Amino acid sequence: MKAVNLAEKLARVHRHWDPHVVADYNDNEVMVVKFEGAFPFHLHPETDDFFLVLEGEMVMDLEGSSHVVKAGELFIVPRGVTHRPRAESECKVLLIEPKGTPNTGDPATAAKKPRI
Amino acid sequence: MKAVNLAEKLARVHRHWDPHVVADYNDNEVMVVKFEGAFPFHLHPETDDFFLVLEGEMVMDLEGSSHVVKAGELFIVPRGVTHRPRAESECKVLLIEPKGTPNTGDPATAAKKPRI
Repeated sequence: MKAVNLAEKLARVHRHWDPHVVADYNDNEVMVVKFEGAFPFHLHPETDDFFLVLEGEMVMDLEGSSHVVKAGELFIVPRGVTHRPRAESECKVLLIEPKGTPNTGDPATAAKKPRI
Repeated sequence: MKAVNLAEKLARVHRHWDPHVVADYNDNEVMVVKFEGAFPFHLHPETDDFFLVLEGEMVMDLEGSSHVVKAGELFIVPRGVTHRPRAESECKVLLIEPKGTPNTGDPATAAKKPRI
């Protein structure tokens, strides 16, 4: 048990859209990730998706609306809702997802989520 | 669905140790809270406890060790571990707990967790 410094963890992440696990919370993985560009539209039928912007700014595109999410703001995408995060310039984000959730919505294309 | 600005929510919290719910994530409540002073030692037998310091600095006292947790750092107390957060001066924190978790470990003394 120790404090987890998110900036230190993010300094070890070198690619965009490559979430790294930094802690476990119940049956969830807590991850840091860097966004830049646009992720594919996808959905998670069984789980909400938690995004907290730590630095920078992102946009969450839903079907029919887009939401700017700035540093210090969180956005939770309810299960079953098609969404796409995107960021014009690099944006650092804390993610929480139940273990085993494919970040793309599809295990075949999902990131590996290494632990740091 | 919209972005939740944590600073704006915290501006509506006027007492210490009084968590307010700002969002739902799966079966969890996401809360903001202000700490100052020392909370009673307690434990949650069935759930981990998630703390992310947003502003200021806190100490997590465990049995036998104490851990400074600064802004941008998270600390997860595993289920069953006796703990006590404390802060010499006001510290703003994001908390996540499964719905219905008493913040003191005891429903008789638990905070009400209003929604803002």
